[in-house]
Amino acid sequence: MNYKQRAKELVAQMTVEEKISQMTNGTAEIERLGIPRYNWWNEGLHGVGRAGTATVFPQAIGLAAAFDRELMFRVATAISDEFRAKYNQFVKHGDLGEMYKGITVWSPNINIFRDPRWGRGHETYGEDTYLTSRLAVDFVKGLQGDDPNHNKTDATLKHYAVHSGPEKGRNTFDSVTNKKDLYETYTYSFEYAIRHSRPAAVMAAYNAVNGVECVRSEYMIDQLLRGEFGFEGYYLSDCGAVCDLFEPRKVAADKGEASAMAVNAGCDLCCGNAYYNLIYAYDKGQIKEDKITESCERLMEARLRLGMGQKTVYDDIPCSVLCSKEHLDLSRDAAVKSAVLLKNNGILPLNKDGITVSVCGPNADDVSVLCGNYNGTPSRDVTMLEGIQDYIGEENVYYSEGCKLFKPGEERLSEALINALHSDVVVTCVGLAPQIEGEAGDAYNSDAGGDKTTLALPAVQQNLLEKLYESEVPVIIVNISGSAVLLGDHYDKAAAIIQMFYPGEKGGDALASILFGDCSPSGKLPVTFYAGDDQLPDFHSYSMDGRTYKYLGGKPTFPFGYGLNYGDVNIDNVSYETLPYSINLDVTLSNNSSIGTHDVLQVYARRLSDCGTGSPYFKLCGFKKIYIPANDRVTTNIVGEEIFAYYNKDGKQETLPGKYEIFVGTSQPDDRSFELTGKRCYCIELNRT
Amino acid sequence: MNYKQRAKELVAQMTVEEKISQMTNGTAEIERLGIPRYNWWNEGLHGVGRAGTATVFPQAIGLAAAFDRELMFRVATAISDEFRAKYNQFVKHGDLGEMYKGITVWSPNINIFRDPRWGRGHETYGEDTYLTSRLAVDFVKGLQGDDPNHNKTDATLKHYAVHSGPEKGRNTFDSVTNKKDLYETYTYSFEYAIRHSRPAAVMAAYNAVNGVECVRSEYMIDQLLRGEFGFEGYYLSDCGAVCDLFEPRKVAADKGEASAMAVNAGCDLCCGNAYYNLIYAYDKGQIKEDKITESCERLMEARLRLGMGQKTVYDDIPCSVLCSKEHLDLSRDAAVKSAVLLKNNGILPLNKDGITVSVCGPNADDVSVLCGNYNGTPSRDVTMLEGIQDYIGEENVYYSEGCKLFKPGEERLSEALINALHSDVVVTCVGLAPQIEGEAGDAYNSDAGGDKTTLALPAVQQNLLEKLYESEVPVIIVNISGSAVLLGDHYDKAAAIIQMFYPGEKGGDALASILFGDCSPSGKLPVTFYAGDDQLPDFHSYSMDGRTYKYLGGKPTFPFGYGLNYGDVNIDNVSYETLPYSINLDVTLSNNSSIGTHDVLQVYARRLSDCGTGSPYFKLCGFKKIYIPANDRVTTNIVGEEIFAYYNKDGKQETLPGKYEIFVGTSQPDDRSFELTGKRCYCIELNRT
Repeated sequence: MNYKQRAKELVAQMTVEEKISQMTNGTAEIERLGIPRYNWWNEGLHGVGRAGTATVFPQAIGLAAAFDRELMFRVATAISDEFRAKYNQFVKHGDLGEMYKGITVWSPNINIFRDPRWGRGHETYGEDTYLTSRLAVDFVKGLQGDDPNHNKTDATLKHYAVHSGPEKGRNTFDSVTNKKDLYETYTYSFEYAIRHSRPAAVMAAYNAVNGVECVRSEYMIDQLLRGEFGFEGYYLSDCGAVCDLFEPRKVAADKGEASAMAVNAGCDLCCGNAYYNLIYAYDKGQIKEDKITESCERLMEARLRLGMGQKTVYDDIPCSVLCSKEHLDLSRDAAVKSAVLLKNNGILPLNKDGITVSVCGPNADDVSVLCGNYNGTPSRDVTMLEGIQDYIGEENVYYSEGCKLFKPGEERLSEALINALHSDVVVTCVGLAPQIEGEAGDAYNSDAGGDKTTLALPAVQQNLLEKLYESEVPVIIVNISGSAVLLGDHYDKAAAIIQMFYPGEKGGDALASILFGDCSPSGKLPVTFYAGDDQLPDFHSYSMDGRTYKYLGGKPTFPFGYGLNYGDVNIDNVSYETLPYSINLDVTLSNNSSIGTHDVLQVYARRLSDCGTGSPYFKLCGFKKIYIPANDRVTTNIVGEEIFAYYNKDGKQETLPGKYEIFVGTSQPDDRSFELTGKRCYCIELNRT
Repeated sequence: MNYKQRAKELVAQMTVEEKISQMTNGTAEIERLGIPRYNWWNEGLHGVGRAGTATVFPQAIGLAAAFDRELMFRVATAISDEFRAKYNQFVKHGDLGEMYKGITVWSPNINIFRDPRWGRGHETYGEDTYLTSRLAVDFVKGLQGDDPNHNKTDATLKHYAVHSGPEKGRNTFDSVTNKKDLYETYTYSFEYAIRHSRPAAVMAAYNAVNGVECVRSEYMIDQLLRGEFGFEGYYLSDCGAVCDLFEPRKVAADKGEASAMAVNAGCDLCCGNAYYNLIYAYDKGQIKEDKITESCERLMEARLRLGMGQKTVYDDIPCSVLCSKEHLDLSRDAAVKSAVLLKNNGILPLNKDGITVSVCGPNADDVSVLCGNYNGTPSRDVTMLEGIQDYIGEENVYYSEGCKLFKPGEERLSEALINALHSDVVVTCVGLAPQIEGEAGDAYNSDAGGDKTTLALPAVQQNLLEKLYESEVPVIIVNISGSAVLLGDHYDKAAAIIQMFYPGEKGGDALASILFGDCSPSGKLPVTFYAGDDQLPDFHSYSMDGRTYKYLGGKPTFPFGYGLNYGDVNIDNVSYETLPYSINLDVTLSNNSSIGTHDVLQVYARRLSDCGTGSPYFKLCGFKKIYIPANDRVTTNIVGEEIFAYYNKDGKQETLPGKYEIFVGTSQPDDRSFELTGKRCYCIELNRT
């Protein structure tokens, strides 16, 4: 179907007022043209969000930690099924027009998690562009479906671009960046996802980039996005960002002029009320009708592609898919695959027979840490405590809150200690929570408008852990957070550490199945776990110098890509073939243990001549989640992509002659990883002439 | 042991400052005399409260709804076991001195639930003195234990007296009452419980009674409580109530004088910091040392009786009793027995085979409505939703919040409706919650400082119900509240109505076992469910005219004592023997159904000559929870107590000649009950000469 042509014909029949009425998130009905009322605003970061009960999958950062493209696609497919199931019913019952009832999904968030203090980092796929871009493709494909005639739902890449905090003051912030960082880090995943998955939409960030706001930047929208990157969909503002041009940014004299600026630059849809004033700007001549027409045509094209008024293959998705057993099992499986085992002195897996477990900590029985943010309502959440109780029986579990999330007070310390002393092991669930890391206005207990001022665990939680170590009962730390925290002080004292990234509604089930060995954890860190706040550059700086595993000089506590499992997986053999920009590898892995496990094969590269200065110390070029049965070996093929392509200071990719190293392993090729895992990466040295 | 004598000897060795240091809830250590630091403040209304994880039993009003003395004693015994288990550990780990670590329990709340708008009514045993007083005895006995040498814990009757709102302004309120109401309604249960269970303590109410504050009223403390009622324990202030004498009440010039007034009147212990100033009053001569000595001796006597420094039979209660299987089962059983079936068109019990159930409503998946107030932390709470999911499987349940508790908004209406249309039945969990009915400062979303301004369900909930009725899918209402709400409008439209009074941590299990017929509900209303706000007198009036089933002229929606079950229980035969003040009855009940059930045999009386004017229309004189097997009959003995004793205007009991009626049945002898239950009470007419 030629939706572009049909959209053109439809819009040609509209008055200018009617066109404008379609360009705000809540649109008007145009009965005459068969255009029903619609609201563009919906959320689906890790499940249908804010539209009532829906399967809550692990938060985005957790899905990233699974390092599993196939899983990501399955999750996104389940999510889009649930969107359509709800939408079909809402249409049937005439409940449209309000927010969160449509099928235009304002996800994924593919910003690079530049700095671990950013509150919204847990909405992203972490700090690496390769991981983010590949997962984004699978997520977008899963959301949009594979029907040639209709999109199942629309995916929206956000926030374009150079956006990763601060939350406080985001409405006036200017992200200053150079061309190298812009292309290598901040727009790479947008371009890649556009080229490989054709997302329907891109959302502008709140911030300006080098002085020009993203909602009105002709450079960012026209030149890069629609020009160089080949984007053909619709571009929308983050909520209120067009009004920001007037207040507080004062680059426009009023909301009308602000709207004209945005539409003139190619911002087709406005979240918020700014475009209500577009007609005044039109009357004043600040914008021509053809620009309005162009934007409205893009939006109509999208609505037609979603099936407006036409039958689609998705109309029969029944509401029984919502929180179906399949989806809940998938959520549970995703939670298992996203859990990262950071330490294990051999205590794990536990033997459930006759065991008494003390469970404590502020995150042990808290539903909010299952859900992260932009979440739906779970049909049946299972907290960490509940998961363990279900697994070994309530009567074998002692529970104490231990301490509050961050509020000082020692009321429950002795209870936690007493419980520990009556138990074989204490599982202490610490970490952060969406109330202290998240979006401005949302993470209401954050010290810094949603961001963190330190990577340290709240003092009360550290105090709880120290008291528990004194008991000499083995302490298993379950750290639940959406970002890196400082765990170095606990590495020697804890018997085991498991990182869970807001694991979704079945998080407790997942934890229990890991603790007791039903499943081997296989997540890897999608972010660096730094050794201290002092390793971090200025939060407001968008220079990548010293940031992420690519440019961090010092040793972190746990590097990007790191994560243990219950198997004993080694690289037995590697053979390869070099191609102009990539390398094709056949890798044999063996598992010399009696526990079968998933692991993540990872390929990193570096250009020796300038790594750490011009080019990254290491960069991820390939990953693959694989299962290696107990006492068995597996040979698999993996491609190291863009392995010889590095960005110069103008943001252009170039391939220089010289020495390259390619690393193949199950963690990052970093000394600290070797030390932690006891394994070396297999290293290939290449000389390119 | 003569604790009185030992306390006298101990206090004789103290300086006046040391004596005073023992009279505030947080006391000082006196090492020289072997007196450890202690904090008197602890709470145990329906489980160990505020001291961490402990079994949460149904809220007090729910325990009352069970109409089951034996159950109340078992619950209180479990609670005191848990108190001692915690205390034993706290002592061992030196964690004393802070609030909620001791074994002096500031429960039960035996105020008469005079007006359904009172926010704290759910802490009480309802509106009837007979029910309240008898249950109080069992609760006190269960808390204090039966060891002749030591109290297991101390029970505290509160709030003495004439106390039932308003919450807002309670620190300046004066309860104006006449002698008849004072004795018949407001102090009856205190006297009865003192005479039959010897509670260790009584707590003064915040309010004044007829102009004199309860913390300093010689009439209330000396003349009535220690004089007429024979109270021998210690008397304490509600928190901050002594300070209130200074500010805001201004009857004392400063906190010192306020403290002197209280101690002079016999208020031995102060919750709050007022008595820190007692030394200044002593220096000024506002109080003599012998009054201080007297109060301190009472407190030391109590501490010795609790075992201070001595071995007790309770020292070995292990922490494994905390949330033990036995206690959790008891909590579940109590929740079942306290649920009141208000309507059943025959839909209940449901057949679980192949059923799909829609569960909705703001109280369906809310933990706070399980817990009520003054609660502990559940080890494993089971919401209504979770209970149903566990029973029939998650995949057979659709869930929607439906609406918020009270906040307007229709976002989830269509979801709830859609779910209903895909289900065989919709279980709608509506009602109130501790955030809108409770104590001043605690029920933060109440419109009136913790009290209710109307008995109506929040408008959003009524709206939800009306929408669901339109679906024509059978609607089962589960109303969860701590007080009466208006259900008249829903009586005809709902297929069934179940009232649950904040049912404790296993509320959802209890509901499922009732819905699907594993258990027959057998609770009875401990409060009148009025037909409208217009049936209520002025909230600030403490006259009993027109209040409760005893003096309400009109017909309520559901009367006190009302509650259905799944059996078909009838009174087959009654034989009796009259005694001077009571009647001894042998009653045969039959159950002509295939479902065995508990029911509550109830005895009411009235004096025909002046009922409704001088004496109550009806008054409860006996009740007994009994089990009647399917298609079987049971003969049981029950005593109608104080059946000929009525209060005159001077507050004295008298027995006048004339006609009396005694009613024996399974509900109140009220036309509305007959209409609702289809059963008549057996009536005995007696002529007393």
